Amino acid sequence: MAVFAKRMRTMERTASIIRGLFGTMNDPGIISFGGGSPAREALPVDIVREIANDVIRTDSRGVEALQYGSVPGLMDLRQAVSTELLTPRGVPANPSNILITSGGLEGINLLCQVFIDPGDVILVESPTFVHCVEIFEMFQARCISVAMDEDGMIPEDLEEKIRRHSPKMIYLVPTFHNPTGRTLSLERRRIIARIGSACDVIILEDDPYRDIRYSGSDLPPIKAFDTTDHTVLANSFSKIFSPGSRLGYVLSSGEINSRLLDAKTATNSHTSMLPQVICAEFFKRGHYPSHHKMICDLYRKRRDTMIESIDRFFPPGTKRVFPDGGLFTWVELPGDINTTELLAESLADPDVRVAFVAGEGFFIEGNGMGKNCMRISFGSVTPEKIRTGAERLGKLIRQKLERKP
Amino acid sequence: MAVFAKRMRTMERTASIIRGLFGTMNDPGIISFGGGSPAREALPVDIVREIANDVIRTDSRGVEALQYGSVPGLMDLRQAVSTELLTPRGVPANPSNILITSGGLEGINLLCQVFIDPGDVILVESPTFVHCVEIFEMFQARCISVAMDEDGMIPEDLEEKIRRHSPKMIYLVPTFHNPTGRTLSLERRRIIARIGSACDVIILEDDPYRDIRYSGSDLPPIKAFDTTDHTVLANSFSKIFSPGSRLGYVLSSGEINSRLLDAKTATNSHTSMLPQVICAEFFKRGHYPSHHKMICDLYRKRRDTMIESIDRFFPPGTKRVFPDGGLFTWVELPGDINTTELLAESLADPDVRVAFVAGEGFFIEGNGMGKNCMRISFGSVTPEKIRTGAERLGKLIRQKLERKP
Repeated sequence: MAVFAKRMRTMERTASIIRGLFGTMNDPGIISFGGGSPAREALPVDIVREIANDVIRTDSRGVEALQYGSVPGLMDLRQAVSTELLTPRGVPANPSNILITSGGLEGINLLCQVFIDPGDVILVESPTFVHCVEIFEMFQARCISVAMDEDGMIPEDLEEKIRRHSPKMIYLVPTFHNPTGRTLSLERRRIIARIGSACDVIILEDDPYRDIRYSGSDLPPIKAFDTTDHTVLANSFSKIFSPGSRLGYVLSSGEINSRLLDAKTATNSHTSMLPQVICAEFFKRGHYPSHHKMICDLYRKRRDTMIESIDRFFPPGTKRVFPDGGLFTWVELPGDINTTELLAESLADPDVRVAFVAGEGFFIEGNGMGKNCMRISFGSVTPEKIRTGAERLGKLIRQKLERKP
Repeated sequence: MAVFAKRMRTMERTASIIRGLFGTMNDPGIISFGGGSPAREALPVDIVREIANDVIRTDSRGVEALQYGSVPGLMDLRQAVSTELLTPRGVPANPSNILITSGGLEGINLLCQVFIDPGDVILVESPTFVHCVEIFEMFQARCISVAMDEDGMIPEDLEEKIRRHSPKMIYLVPTFHNPTGRTLSLERRRIIARIGSACDVIILEDDPYRDIRYSGSDLPPIKAFDTTDHTVLANSFSKIFSPGSRLGYVLSSGEINSRLLDAKTATNSHTSMLPQVICAEFFKRGHYPSHHKMICDLYRKRRDTMIESIDRFFPPGTKRVFPDGGLFTWVELPGDINTTELLAESLADPDVRVAFVAGEGFFIEGNGMGKNCMRISFGSVTPEKIRTGAERLGKLIRQKLERKP
């Protein structure tokens, strides 16, 4: 049989991790703290129906919604991104620098098309978002990790790794980081933007959670401190509008932007128009502020319940992150509990059946780092089930600790 | 500034051709035989509104339409592809072998992810669909052309090129070929499937026009003759449902299919759910047969008008293809008229202003082949404008011929 491309080999290990992640997400008998899905209640179903009913008409925008569109995406949607999402954050973007993508991840893929040759080094956080590592490995990049602490990626280690590995790109999720829920501090945002410029390294700022903040004060994106066009900002409508719509955007400048357009043309020509038309109208009709408040209230409550429940039910010595937004917290268990084994036991035990994502898969080091950690998602589970799930899981962990010598 | 990936250089020439193609498409003062867009009248706007209104409800499929979906795509849509589009054509496909893509071109991109390393050879028709050449060049493939005649790709030349270049893949548009409108004969479909198996070369059958046939009898896809899983069939909903929805599908087998799923995961996770849910419902509610008849009747009339008008208004010695379906005819002009110059004159002359695509760009040989040819699209222009446009263009061509010595 014809031989697969080399990239299929380099991505194989991570691809199999990701296939595994998707496996247990939809079993109704399981309380799942696993996936990163938004809450069902956070989806603007009625608003979308109302808009669809108004605009899918031959005398309105119906033809536009069904006919071929332009490569960069619908101008109304790019305008909404600029005025509603970027300008208020200190990034007064020109819509011509915005490319609408089929979900946030596609922006990552396209930027790799533009910059990554086989063997290029991409620096990532430790731990990092494993789905993007799969993308980087498809491009045959070599991923090298940079240490994090509670304030995000550590600039000193970043500089050291740049010196040693001459990377092409730095990938980070600065706000409500996936998987840890941590946020890069203001000072480090400034410093990392400066490092990108000084060392001529592309900074890929993946920021899909930034708009769902429940406490603390807003921080400008790294892109706000970029004076040399080295930072590219990728974001998504998945958390604030709808993940199934597969809408995202990339903000970049000059030549990078026009290369991204070429890569988009050669990927799928343009993003689906119907979701674009409806999402643009969602902003235009002023639904965003009240919808945004509703979902932040909803998630704040779930976050608070999750943190309280972990503090109450998990054993002493458990460390957890208090995230100011996003969908995840990160838990480090005491003792030497292996969370991959814990997950298998939890799913197999009819009295537990709680899913989460074991920490190990988020570390590219592959040396057992994170094996006592877990990513816990609170977005798609009701407060009542959060309490029940955390109680069951906490009990199982305590039992395991007691069984150990 | 950070250096772009090598693939940006290899795709540059074709990318600039494609950017040029998009330029004049939307000028309302121009009669455009240029783009490959479906007719505005062929878009099922009212049906889509009705379906959207019914299904985007929390008690119906609204949550499914807005929430994350699965990598291979919505099962109902894959089922519809199998029962309504493939089984009737002699390809009784299992839905698990079907991947829903974001438009037909994405299927081409994903298959390149799976198979193409830099330097691999892809054999293409001469002329070929230039947008796909851009994709192949993004993957740093070396494209080599295979001769065509009125029955499509010539097997003897294909075998000769396989011997000489050891290709990884053969790309062809067998039915109502873009740009020529020609159809690969039944006998050659059999032979080419056999060649793929015997020579262990992947056949990428790109078949987006097959479902819009206006005359002649249906031919099975090459895939129907594939006994060794060497043929991969890519198709699109752009011509039978809506291009803006960016929906397509790939039919493949075994290991190829699972590798395509990995590539899709690392491209954009899955195709937008809202268009998938609506398109699946379009088939489920039985709209397809009557919609299909309506659009075929519409295009048949436009094709007939275009062919009659070319025969009537273009100068003697003009050769044109009579396509049994699809959206294009291919015209070869007498004398040594350069169609790139003709296009510029046509657009600049206020008494003409008719767009088409000059033939030269469809030939990868780059040696002036096709410089007296043009691709003429009749899909999106009313019969009245087809007559007017062909008359104006024919007059300009006659004038140019008379001016020559």
